[in-house]
Amino acid sequence: MLYLTRRETFNAAHKLHVPAWSDEENLRVFGKCSNKNWHGHNYQLFVTVAGEPDPVTGFVMDAKVLSTIVKREIIDEVDHANFNLDVDWMPAGMQPTTENIVRLFWERIEAQVNENGARLYCIRLQETENIAAEYYGPEGRK
Amino acid sequence: MLYLTRRETFNAAHKLHVPAWSDEENLRVFGKCSNKNWHGHNYQLFVTVAGEPDPVTGFVMDAKVLSTIVKREIIDEVDHANFNLDVDWMPAGMQPTTENIVRLFWERIEAQVNENGARLYCIRLQETENIAAEYYGPEGRK
Amino acid sequence: MLYLTRRETFNAAHKLHVPAWSDEENLRVFGKCSNKNWHGHNYQLFVTVAGEPDPVTGFVMDAKVLSTIVKREIIDEVDHANFNLDVDWMPAGMQPTTENIVRLFWERIEAQVNENGARLYCIRLQETENIAAEYYGPEGRK
Amino acid sequence: MLYLTRRETFNAAHKLHVPAWSDEENLRVFGKCSNKNWHGHNYQLFVTVAGEPDPVTGFVMDAKVLSTIVKREIIDEVDHANFNLDVDWMPAGMQPTTENIVRLFWERIEAQVNENGARLYCIRLQETENIAAEYYGPEGRK
Amino acid sequence: MLYLTRRETFNAAHKLHVPAWSDEENLRVFGKCSNKNWHGHNYQLFVTVAGEPDPVTGFVMDAKVLSTIVKREIIDEVDHANFNLDVDWMPAGMQPTTENIVRLFWERIEAQVNENGARLYCIRLQETENIAAEYYGPEGRK
Amino acid sequence: MLYLTRRETFNAAHKLHVPAWSDEENLRVFGKCSNKNWHGHNYQLFVTVAGEPDPVTGFVMDAKVLSTIVKREIIDEVDHANFNLDVDWMPAGMQPTTENIVRLFWERIEAQVNENGARLYCIRLQETENIAAEYYGPEGRK
Repeated sequence: MLYLTRRETFNAAHKLHVPAWSDEENLRVFGKCSNKNWHGHNYQLFVTVAGEPDPVTGFVMDAKVLSTIVKREIIDEVDHANFNLDVDWMPAGMQPTTENIVRLFWERIEAQVNENGARLYCIRLQETENIAAEYYGPEGRK
Repeated sequence: MLYLTRRETFNAAHKLHVPAWSDEENLRVFGKCSNKNWHGHNYQLFVTVAGEPDPVTGFVMDAKVLSTIVKREIIDEVDHANFNLDVDWMPAGMQPTTENIVRLFWERIEAQVNENGARLYCIRLQETENIAAEYYGPEGRK
Repeated sequence: MLYLTRRETFNAAHKLHVPAWSDEENLRVFGKCSNKNWHGHNYQLFVTVAGEPDPVTGFVMDAKVLSTIVKREIIDEVDHANFNLDVDWMPAGMQPTTENIVRLFWERIEAQVNENGARLYCIRLQETENIAAEYYGPEGRK
Repeated sequence: MLYLTRRETFNAAHKLHVPAWSDEENLRVFGKCSNKNWHGHNYQLFVTVAGEPDPVTGFVMDAKVLSTIVKREIIDEVDHANFNLDVDWMPAGMQPTTENIVRLFWERIEAQVNENGARLYCIRLQETENIAAEYYGPEGRK
Repeated sequence: MLYLTRRETFNAAHKLHVPAWSDEENLRVFGKCSNKNWHGHNYQLFVTVAGEPDPVTGFVMDAKVLSTIVKREIIDEVDHANFNLDVDWMPAGMQPTTENIVRLFWERIEAQVNENGARLYCIRLQETENIAAEYYGPEGRK
Repeated sequence: MLYLTRRETFNAAHKLHVPAWSDEENLRVFGKCSNKNWHGHNYQLFVTVAGEPDPVTGFVMDAKVLSTIVKREIIDEVDHANFNLDVDWMPAGMQPTTENIVRLFWERIEAQVNENGARLYCIRLQETENIAAEYYGPEGRK
């Protein structure tokens, strides 16, 4: 089993804010991330697939095909966008934390990646140089 | 003459948008940066001062003092903020491009830096891994 | 299961040196790392926790709480310090190799992290751009 | 179990090209990577070994010994070389994709690494800032 | 005067080799870079322009226009290419050193950049993490 | 005029401490950097030379020769060393700040670099990801 990782980048705005809470409660839980006027990040997305290299091409999966899927299903939807306002496949009331986002990204691309000879293995999202989240699918790391 | 550079980081939202223009004109000029719902970046700010090292301390300027000025005058004002909505020293109608921001940052801290034995030499702002701007003050690079 | 990683940085001095050995033996085994007058590094510490995101906050664990624990129990103890001389929870005679340090760091924070709704999953310590160590706890990677 | 990772770097040329195919077919499958006149990369190689730290030295494995093995068996063979023309242990007809290379590297060093008290755990090869591959041996990640 | 820097990346092969010299002489002067079968790099290209920000757009120069010029005149010509064989605007007999390449790149884009309201100020080419060259035009740094 | 930059790395220990001052005064001025038991850094050293590329080799200066000078005169002296105790060309009482070190490094190599067809232009020392110093020689940036 070989693992291939492709990086894509995007820039987006978001805030962490529970409408049912007071501003004070939001500030207490989410700190400056609750600023009502938004803030944003340069996100780095790392998508890892697992499989056996094709005996002729040497590809676990064609990285161009992987990139096309990730760009169409994720980057085109979130780049220069606002996670809270612009992403219609983000469920109402779900906070756009790094943890929640990687799980949504997994659901967006798993089926399409798996149709291409490899298996989606991990989605890693680097939000800042100090924070990142990883998800290995609903059955966990195998 | 020695040059000392201190890096600080912050995360902010912004958009590039001229209200007098149509959405189409904004899109044509600013591309995805004109998204009305904002986007954002992990900014890296590099502040460079010039001077002679103190013969006893070896400091061109105490980096902790420099950091205190930059945090109080800039970072506390723009971190987890929206350049268009939250920064009251950004003139009305000025686009928060990297070029405009570095000049505003210069004006925020020049006097305070120069009171501390060194001279503000350069402000560099890295917006993404692909875009940065630099400013050397109104009299230019010397 | 989601994984959240928080980076912290610190600068420290150390040496690798077995007092019972001759200088020649220390030099043979540890090379320049045995210099009796110390050397040092800019360490990058990556702490990963695993858990389910809270349905309201979207947090596997509040990154600010994680950071507070890591700073209080680790960074405040080792930053601008000497691993051999200043860290009283480093057992006498234990070499401050990257491998030994990550295990000690695990023991410092495991209980406190696990009281906060997530499980400590991995501690990674980057000593230089060329050397890093990882530890997944006494029961190993799960 | 502790994991120690050592980075080495090298620069090499390669192309992805199946001689039995037409130029058009090569271009369709491999894109610009099929350029008959080669292209190249600054590769970063990360070799991870697993083991228990020696109670006296604190080493899972002496990083200098690991580096010596990796340099002699891999770096000296591929640095400033052409994967398709200069590497005689690359089987005829095998494409020098990142996925195929990490598996060949594993076979080059596994026995020698394992003679030194640790177990080869992972080989990761970063081809560009956007592409990397990992291999955990014929029995997979354990 | 403000300075705006745009990064682009490309991967290319080259060798340093004077045909009139013996292999021994080439090896003595160019070391492993003279390997007849080529080697290659992930190049990072930083193009800096200088000017005054437009009072309406805040742009010294539209970074998308700058990127379009650089991609058309440079990246499309050298990406996944061989500097010695594929670049017809590299003079015969000129070695593709980082120093020579940045000067050729300057000549490729200076006129087109300067037609867009800014002045080409610097071209920096990072060949590896250890080597880079910069050029400020035939009249030097101003 | 072309500029060529070569990076070298080293790891060292130091402290900032004026013996004539009380511990309190040292702590007030130097903060944690005054810890009597030392701390350390992974330093990155960038040496820039200026000149015209040789018409045959394309070299402003042979980077291997530059590297040899820098390694012999600087890296071999400070790597895995203590700036305060091990570097006999650091004047007594001089604080090993980044600013003071770059000036000492300049004096160590200027004559030898300038004998090789190029002119030493800049020495930049990156102490941490947040602090760096630059020196352009006693006559300043030209």
